[in-house]
Amino acid sequence: MPAITYEIIHQDKNTNARAGILHTPHGSFLTPIFMPVGTKATVKGVSPEELKDLGARIVLSNTYHLFLRPGAELVREAGGLHKFMHWDGGILTDSGGFQVFSLGELRKIKEEGVTFRSHIDGSKQFLSPEVSMEVQMALGADIVMAFDECIPYPADYEYAKESTARTARWARRSKDAMTANNQGLFGIVQGGMYEDLRRQSAKELVEMDFPGYAVGGLSVGEPKELMYEMLQVSTSELPENKARYLMGVGTPDYFIESVMRGIDMFDCVFPTRVARNGMAMTHTGRIVIKNACYEHDHNVLEENCDCYACRNGYTRSYIRHLFRSDEMFGLRLLTLHNLRFLQIFMKEMREVILEDKFLEFRTNFYVNNPNLQPKQ
Amino acid sequence: MPAITYEIIHQDKNTNARAGILHTPHGSFLTPIFMPVGTKATVKGVSPEELKDLGARIVLSNTYHLFLRPGAELVREAGGLHKFMHWDGGILTDSGGFQVFSLGELRKIKEEGVTFRSHIDGSKQFLSPEVSMEVQMALGADIVMAFDECIPYPADYEYAKESTARTARWARRSKDAMTANNQGLFGIVQGGMYEDLRRQSAKELVEMDFPGYAVGGLSVGEPKELMYEMLQVSTSELPENKARYLMGVGTPDYFIESVMRGIDMFDCVFPTRVARNGMAMTHTGRIVIKNACYEHDHNVLEENCDCYACRNGYTRSYIRHLFRSDEMFGLRLLTLHNLRFLQIFMKEMREVILEDKFLEFRTNFYVNNPNLQPKQ
Repeated sequence: MPAITYEIIHQDKNTNARAGILHTPHGSFLTPIFMPVGTKATVKGVSPEELKDLGARIVLSNTYHLFLRPGAELVREAGGLHKFMHWDGGILTDSGGFQVFSLGELRKIKEEGVTFRSHIDGSKQFLSPEVSMEVQMALGADIVMAFDECIPYPADYEYAKESTARTARWARRSKDAMTANNQGLFGIVQGGMYEDLRRQSAKELVEMDFPGYAVGGLSVGEPKELMYEMLQVSTSELPENKARYLMGVGTPDYFIESVMRGIDMFDCVFPTRVARNGMAMTHTGRIVIKNACYEHDHNVLEENCDCYACRNGYTRSYIRHLFRSDEMFGLRLLTLHNLRFLQIFMKEMREVILEDKFLEFRTNFYVNNPNLQPKQ
Repeated sequence: MPAITYEIIHQDKNTNARAGILHTPHGSFLTPIFMPVGTKATVKGVSPEELKDLGARIVLSNTYHLFLRPGAELVREAGGLHKFMHWDGGILTDSGGFQVFSLGELRKIKEEGVTFRSHIDGSKQFLSPEVSMEVQMALGADIVMAFDECIPYPADYEYAKESTARTARWARRSKDAMTANNQGLFGIVQGGMYEDLRRQSAKELVEMDFPGYAVGGLSVGEPKELMYEMLQVSTSELPENKARYLMGVGTPDYFIESVMRGIDMFDCVFPTRVARNGMAMTHTGRIVIKNACYEHDHNVLEENCDCYACRNGYTRSYIRHLFRSDEMFGLRLLTLHNLRFLQIFMKEMREVILEDKFLEFRTNFYVNNPNLQPKQ
């Protein structure tokens, strides 16, 4: 029995949206699912109990960051990432590939792997499929990711082709190096913004038979329409009986468009990052809490919301005061609200899939958020 | 029936330490008691539920800060401070006197009151006994403090004498201006470091018959021995059937020496402030969590501690990682630990008072913390 399996419960009649269950060694989770990001072995400002309370069942943590600090061996010594950060739910670790390219300095990509300088202390470091797997085995996450290159946007065809082929070779090496039987390795579809490369990437990964597949290299600056097109192409090549994970996407319109194209799993720093900058997400748009219009607003962030902040009656006026006064508790309240909002949104999507009403849900969403309507 | 009453449960046979109950409109609290500080209507980084969980029953909030931001009228409009900050336990607000002198700029003291410039925006402001009472009535705390001047250290006799006399007149005006019958006004003993002025200050306040008395102007830079002497003089003039509150003191040796001299209530930013700087308080001294010696230390902060951090197994190694990574959750874990430590310490003092074993407790404390032993 593989560590990670996926089960479709219902396929929407009108779209590719599906409701399912993701089975992991640390629990089974209903999909579509959003995974809060705990980059450095903590979801910023939130306790594990609060994560559970708001409905989060699986979190993402970053191999690149933990590799540099505190180091994989320290986490192994502590009994693994679950124990270190006191989280008995699911954990997914990325491979470090994305951060090497977005954070690491002076990187050099070779077939063997990538040398770069740490963004913390400038020290010279090396990551490869084999090193990434070793680190991810020390961390012990339920789902681990193949080491890949996230192709920048824009990129010319030749570069994208070469990179995509290398990512496929790295996926094979990742698979060979991942020897833990309580962890499931996902392959990552790349291919830049080229349809043929996307298809080729997906096909090669499917041949290697991973327990799940991610779609990477999207939402990197390209127009929305192009992203949706590349997503559609990528998922169309993936098997239906495996989980599909769109990396780094975290806003409601993207969720709707991606679930409609067959995506089951999401992660993104957006909801927690904007919370720390004073922005609350709601079904009808965003609230910038420092705005003067909220000074005397003694309502909660969103009516009928059951997040910690709203159900306890913390008002916009009070949260605004906390932000203006640089008080940490304000960050926490908005973070808890946004993370709960996403859990509610996922639950709503799941329910309409089960009732074959996904298209109605989508239409209704754009009625409430007309500025987000995609061009058709 | 006055809003605030105090009941002695047991007087230690060997010292002036006493165990009692403080009755307020928002509950009755066992003394000795420590009040966490929520300067700007929030205890930094901690939720009301967490405060309750760690045993805090009454918190302090600052009139000066709330007067400047968000303003007393906004808090009144929100339904008072309890509702605004979602705290149904006790609240004590100070008068703003101390902050006007420590934070306000360009202050001018006259008989009528104090003009100063806001440390936030430089705006010209005025506080007086009457304004302070009006603000504190808008905030609606259970215990409110008379408007006073905290005499700096050192101060010459003439200055201290004049200031102490003015503080007494301001106490009378505060009493006249405080017309809410669900709030209890405490007088504040001043007098600098002069025994006769301390006695005179206490006597004048006692004649005005407050439901409780604070000792102010101590721990402002004077030697410990002088502080203890002035504290002894101050409390010796106060009635036994009223609560006694030592303002701004927050470390275990000060607690022991002050409770021994008849103090019932404490507040201080120390435990929360040092927590945010990475320091944990324990029965055997302080832990500077960033120190390299804790890198591989997979023990909790203090063995047998039942705080949130310790009872859930968060290790020194993990908390050190959080601090090195500038992660907010580290601040929260240490804040929760330190605040729980103080609640435990208060409970231990209360228990040994009830058993007439306070002196043994004190001796034992100095055996474990020899560097804190007062000179005799």
